[in-house]
Amino acid sequence: MSLSSNYDKLLAKNKELIILQSTESLVNWDMETKMPPRGVELRSQQLAQLSQIEHRMATDPEIGTLLEKIENQPDFEDLDALQKRNLYLIRKSYDEQTKLPERLVVETERQRTIAIDTWKKAKAAKDFNLFKPELEKLFDLKRQAAEILMDVKKTATPYDALIDIFEPKMTSDVIASVFDELRRNLVAIIEKCLAAPRQPDSSFLGRRVPIDVQRKISDSLAEFIEYDVTSKNAGGRIDETEHPFSTGYFDDVRITTHYYEDNIASSIFSVLHEGGHAKYEQGLGKEWIYQPIGSSCSYGFHESQSRFVENIVGRSTEFWAHYLPRLKALTDGAFSDIGLDDFVRAINFVKPSKIRIEADEVTYCLHIIIRFEIERALFDGKATVAELPEIWNEKYLSYLGLKIENDSEGVMQDTHWASGSFGYFPSYALGNIYSGQILSRMVKDIPDWREEIAKGSFHRVGEWLTENVHSYGNLYDPADLLRKITGEEINVKHYIDYLNIKFSNLYGF
Amino acid sequence: MSLSSNYDKLLAKNKELIILQSTESLVNWDMETKMPPRGVELRSQQLAQLSQIEHRMATDPEIGTLLEKIENQPDFEDLDALQKRNLYLIRKSYDEQTKLPERLVVETERQRTIAIDTWKKAKAAKDFNLFKPELEKLFDLKRQAAEILMDVKKTATPYDALIDIFEPKMTSDVIASVFDELRRNLVAIIEKCLAAPRQPDSSFLGRRVPIDVQRKISDSLAEFIEYDVTSKNAGGRIDETEHPFSTGYFDDVRITTHYYEDNIASSIFSVLHEGGHAKYEQGLGKEWIYQPIGSSCSYGFHESQSRFVENIVGRSTEFWAHYLPRLKALTDGAFSDIGLDDFVRAINFVKPSKIRIEADEVTYCLHIIIRFEIERALFDGKATVAELPEIWNEKYLSYLGLKIENDSEGVMQDTHWASGSFGYFPSYALGNIYSGQILSRMVKDIPDWREEIAKGSFHRVGEWLTENVHSYGNLYDPADLLRKITGEEINVKHYIDYLNIKFSNLYGF
Repeated sequence: MSLSSNYDKLLAKNKELIILQSTESLVNWDMETKMPPRGVELRSQQLAQLSQIEHRMATDPEIGTLLEKIENQPDFEDLDALQKRNLYLIRKSYDEQTKLPERLVVETERQRTIAIDTWKKAKAAKDFNLFKPELEKLFDLKRQAAEILMDVKKTATPYDALIDIFEPKMTSDVIASVFDELRRNLVAIIEKCLAAPRQPDSSFLGRRVPIDVQRKISDSLAEFIEYDVTSKNAGGRIDETEHPFSTGYFDDVRITTHYYEDNIASSIFSVLHEGGHAKYEQGLGKEWIYQPIGSSCSYGFHESQSRFVENIVGRSTEFWAHYLPRLKALTDGAFSDIGLDDFVRAINFVKPSKIRIEADEVTYCLHIIIRFEIERALFDGKATVAELPEIWNEKYLSYLGLKIENDSEGVMQDTHWASGSFGYFPSYALGNIYSGQILSRMVKDIPDWREEIAKGSFHRVGEWLTENVHSYGNLYDPADLLRKITGEEINVKHYIDYLNIKFSNLYGF
Repeated sequence: MSLSSNYDKLLAKNKELIILQSTESLVNWDMETKMPPRGVELRSQQLAQLSQIEHRMATDPEIGTLLEKIENQPDFEDLDALQKRNLYLIRKSYDEQTKLPERLVVETERQRTIAIDTWKKAKAAKDFNLFKPELEKLFDLKRQAAEILMDVKKTATPYDALIDIFEPKMTSDVIASVFDELRRNLVAIIEKCLAAPRQPDSSFLGRRVPIDVQRKISDSLAEFIEYDVTSKNAGGRIDETEHPFSTGYFDDVRITTHYYEDNIASSIFSVLHEGGHAKYEQGLGKEWIYQPIGSSCSYGFHESQSRFVENIVGRSTEFWAHYLPRLKALTDGAFSDIGLDDFVRAINFVKPSKIRIEADEVTYCLHIIIRFEIERALFDGKATVAELPEIWNEKYLSYLGLKIENDSEGVMQDTHWASGSFGYFPSYALGNIYSGQILSRMVKDIPDWREEIAKGSFHRVGEWLTENVHSYGNLYDPADLLRKITGEEINVKHYIDYLNIKFSNLYGF
């Protein structure tokens, strides 16, 4: 067979895999958003089965045969760069997947479903002991996978192999060094903020806003960032879950949020954050749909997009110059006595807090650094699952000066470990760092971007992000994409500069 | 291998099929209820893939090998009746599925998704011509399947092979003869109702009730029939679709309804109807989960349960003696001036109408008879898809005396043909007939059932239905189950008697 017909055959097989993965995402989405509570037993069977089918598709020996044929064909070099990247991504995934025993994959998927369900119950009951045995089983399965993947990916440690899933070619050593610089700079900013004589008053953010009104606010925020969830041609939707997330593919990308009557900011920034993720997925080149290159670059890059929309845009004075009057109108005057400066200072109140997803922009990364250190210790055998609450609470006391009262506001606050997503957390801080680098590049093309936002238009910023980030899809590994966009390696400086300028203005230091 | 280990192996393979089918139901449910409009292209790919995987599972040659081994094993007779029924059902499905080419199955599933989407658009645009080409393609595919299945099932016609999917062993000749008797009796009752001097006034049913209030009514109706959609242990949920339906399996059974601000009855009876379906699914013997016998008997029997709850219970004077005060409270006095008799007469207003799902209990089956006659003509080659609107409109004029103004209130009102479900409609009328026979049997066990309902308790009726209908699962073909429950063959008399007593009381004839 000719090179191009082998290539087409391989891509067609891979397309099947991508479609099945999109079905799995949907079934997971339903579990989190709509499933009746009693459905969990059946759901774990459904997900285990889908994951088994997926694993079989991903490890189909015909993929290996086709890859080998193509790689050895004399006219291989006739393939263009896009085709070669597709082949690289398929080869990488195939080599990794074929090394994972089907038994392990199926068992992990089943245990994941059980652990998520138990986590929910344990969190409600504030009882880590309920969660512990299920997390231990899941951790044990993930460690087995990490050890196998370490060999294939040739990483230095099992934990590095897991990091590579979320941030290809990133290592725990690089992260540790970057996080070190990040932490020192953040601590300095935090100290200045805490020492500033004029502290924000954020108490008005606790004013009661009915959930129905908050839903309308969500829709209007989605409209602002041009993420369509309401029209007859919508490609998205907003639902409600304990922990906000985004999921989906191209024309069906969904986000979730959580409404608290007495915490309007929680949902506002969740919607902007998850909306940033959704914009990325919907900005991928349509012509690459169902191809490996038609996916996002990495979890870190994904996070750079969500944090860009949530913080760089969403917590800016310019955005609120536009949106505060709308918010006042939508909430029927609940905030009519609040001026722009006071509002912006309140939503940027720097204050060590217990819950990661509600942390301010400056302390946020400390939450991530804690999680990274704990994960690294777990996989290096320097900590056990049973010790997690103790280690967690110690670190929160030492890094953030906070006493954790119970594990629901502590080690059980996030869904990630219950979902088996070890190695995921570092991406959040990497995303912040990338977002600073991306911003410093965007300013050169759109020097008046802040004025645009203040005028109520996200359009040029959104278009720039799509053109310069989203549309590259998975054409490059993250370090290469970063270089492509900014001309630089990973560099904490831009993010720190951005924070310094912003918070010195707000706090007057 | 021993008989029992072969049997266990076969059942394990079949369990995989059942789990996959439950996933497919979920993905279909999402398409109808939650999917963003632009998601349809991806969704059609997902469903086509699932249906292809299902077809491969269902036709796995190992099933054939195992069946043959078991059927020829010398100790075959040691299997009990339940095991033999499981084998019968697996054999039947396997023989049918293996005769359908995979190409046809996949193409049908893809075309089905497209046709449903086009139907929605065409219905909104009142434009049958938009829908026609997609329906023609789908009909052509279904005819091919029907011709293949006719050979396997040894039915007299292709259409009979489709009927057998929904109502095993039922034939179009029997249906034609039963429907003939049914029609003559219904027409007589309709004439008496229309001639009665005192006609109901149903105009108050058009009073505006906000959708949010109607949602609360739905929850309270679900609570009445003991279909749990609200508790922390719920196994069901209620969503909103253009056309109400129910779907799901055991502990995750979902219903949908449609709210109209000015038609409170529409949603009330949809919820009771679909709730009757849900009760059936949840009443199947838990110990038979994932076995072929752990499914419902037939679509006709399913409909007997939905119509029982909707009409025999839900449109009775006794139910409204209990529920009207609650309705008045929930609607904040919107119906405070309406007495019980006037209310019950209004919801039982016999009046030929255009929309099947909103038809009264007496004219309802005429809608079904029209659809049956049209389907039969289509498959007998006596009518074409292009002629459907004309034939439809003629029949509505001649049977119900109604002039259809546009195809959205005519031939495009139902989703069934867009979904490729030819042969399904007769089940609705068969269900009504069965419900009359089941009622006449239940009265012997619970002579005071009407008093129970009036006291506000569905419990004993629900338990009786579960014990005498639901819990038999798929242990018998419908004619056998009917005989088991009632000691009789299919018999229009009981349903007609029930209608005659009820409507002569209401109309005074």
